[in-house]
Amino acid sequence: MPPTDELGAAAIDLDELVEVAGLLADAARRQTLAGFRRPMLVEDKGGTEASTIDGSGFDPVTAADRAAEAAMREVLRDRRPDDGVRGEELDDTTGTSGLTWVLDPIDGTRSYIAGMPTWGTLIAISDGTRPFLGIIAQPHVGERFVGIDHPERRQAWLQRQGGRSPLRTRVRSLDEAVLFTTFPEVGTPAERAAFERVRDRVRMTRYGADCYAYALLAAGHVDLVVEAGLKPHDVHALVPIVEAAGGVATAWDGSPGHEGGRLLAAGSADLHRAAMDLLAGVPDRG
Amino acid sequence: MPPTDELGAAAIDLDELVEVAGLLADAARRQTLAGFRRPMLVEDKGGTEASTIDGSGFDPVTAADRAAEAAMREVLRDRRPDDGVRGEELDDTTGTSGLTWVLDPIDGTRSYIAGMPTWGTLIAISDGTRPFLGIIAQPHVGERFVGIDHPERRQAWLQRQGGRSPLRTRVRSLDEAVLFTTFPEVGTPAERAAFERVRDRVRMTRYGADCYAYALLAAGHVDLVVEAGLKPHDVHALVPIVEAAGGVATAWDGSPGHEGGRLLAAGSADLHRAAMDLLAGVPDRG
Repeated sequence: MPPTDELGAAAIDLDELVEVAGLLADAARRQTLAGFRRPMLVEDKGGTEASTIDGSGFDPVTAADRAAEAAMREVLRDRRPDDGVRGEELDDTTGTSGLTWVLDPIDGTRSYIAGMPTWGTLIAISDGTRPFLGIIAQPHVGERFVGIDHPERRQAWLQRQGGRSPLRTRVRSLDEAVLFTTFPEVGTPAERAAFERVRDRVRMTRYGADCYAYALLAAGHVDLVVEAGLKPHDVHALVPIVEAAGGVATAWDGSPGHEGGRLLAAGSADLHRAAMDLLAGVPDRG
Repeated sequence: MPPTDELGAAAIDLDELVEVAGLLADAARRQTLAGFRRPMLVEDKGGTEASTIDGSGFDPVTAADRAAEAAMREVLRDRRPDDGVRGEELDDTTGTSGLTWVLDPIDGTRSYIAGMPTWGTLIAISDGTRPFLGIIAQPHVGERFVGIDHPERRQAWLQRQGGRSPLRTRVRSLDEAVLFTTFPEVGTPAERAAFERVRDRVRMTRYGADCYAYALLAAGHVDLVVEAGLKPHDVHALVPIVEAAGGVATAWDGSPGHEGGRLLAAGSADLHRAAMDLLAGVPDRG
């Protein structure tokens, strides 16, 4: 029986969780780098025709993607057998500890397939209500962006080349902001129109960085990320990193964003509000 | 007086030129990394208002950009005083050797400013008719893509972590191709329409990788790059790397591409021809 705090909830050992999350990133690293920039088989998960960026049927999954998730689950079976697991590739498992790991072995599979070093392995832990620990790992560059957003501790840092530096968002006005997005690749026409209202107001827009854009936002190089069509495993790790670094990450309407859909991340609360105003009024997807 | 070959032209010592090009990359590295992911002053070179991606007035230059070019020129004054230099930032100098170095200290300044590790330092040597040696260096990732396309030697390789691996393009049909571009950021409406004819035929399109897209093409991860609005210093280094790796890099009409404008690079001659057919008929810029 794990120790419990005075409210009866299982006590959380944040240091142990950070350690295990690091072991997961190590395990995934071996598998993702084994496949990165190697000739590979690209399956079409949806069973539909491969399409150009304007279609929606093209969802590449690689052998490395599955092998990396399996390797992470193996670590969890050994070190955290009572926790649940939600992954991109394999079936969800329910735990008894109240904690759930949310895993995306390769976020940004299109970048991965094209050899771009801006995909990431996403690792998060949720207490059932929200993710409170997240990692974005980019093993080719050798970077890990880590965030803890928990009542006991709020901290975000970048690990690279054996060193550790704090992550801190910067504060910019909308007209000075650098915006990242995955548009034009995803999104309904209404979502795209809303995105363009933000794009037309900022200083610079960059495309297609996936999770890496949130890492750069947490590090204070990027001010806004606007995306749509996200899955829970795409988002869980991002929210605690952005929030612990001083930013705000929510759904476009300001509600909690970690279950996916439309995500807005900003370096400051003011900038988040300004972008949210421009993104308002998009109807729910049917 | 340098040694001359039987035609009276100055003999070229390729090994020495590769060595000096590496020293230039080293010198640029110190300056570019000193500014990368640091808070920085962004000037507007054109003297016009900063604008969104749809405008054309936003051309950020950083202190690092100029310092890196100055550092490279310093190496050349010491090691290759008789060669000419064309750079992005400083005045051209004419040499007496018949060789000219073409330098772009930071290609992809937008990526640089946003913290993305996909900008590059471009170093090329031209014999007055064409570039025959090129380097794309990405110092944050620690990569140098090098190509020699010269009658004496044709060779392309990636240097990383003390190792060296050959670069070789892959052969794919148009409908299987991965395409990179900087559109929607650059280009006239007619150029963009031509680009979209290619985009609509390929398997996947990715945006905004600048010179790094050509490095990935040479390495066999990307099949096509289509761009417009390029300057000579944007292009000189790319052509010998792509060609020495087995690809084809020309202007959209098939003429030599190294003086800039519209560039098309492909992993194979067949794919290059197929893309050129789709890009045909765009009128010259006025």
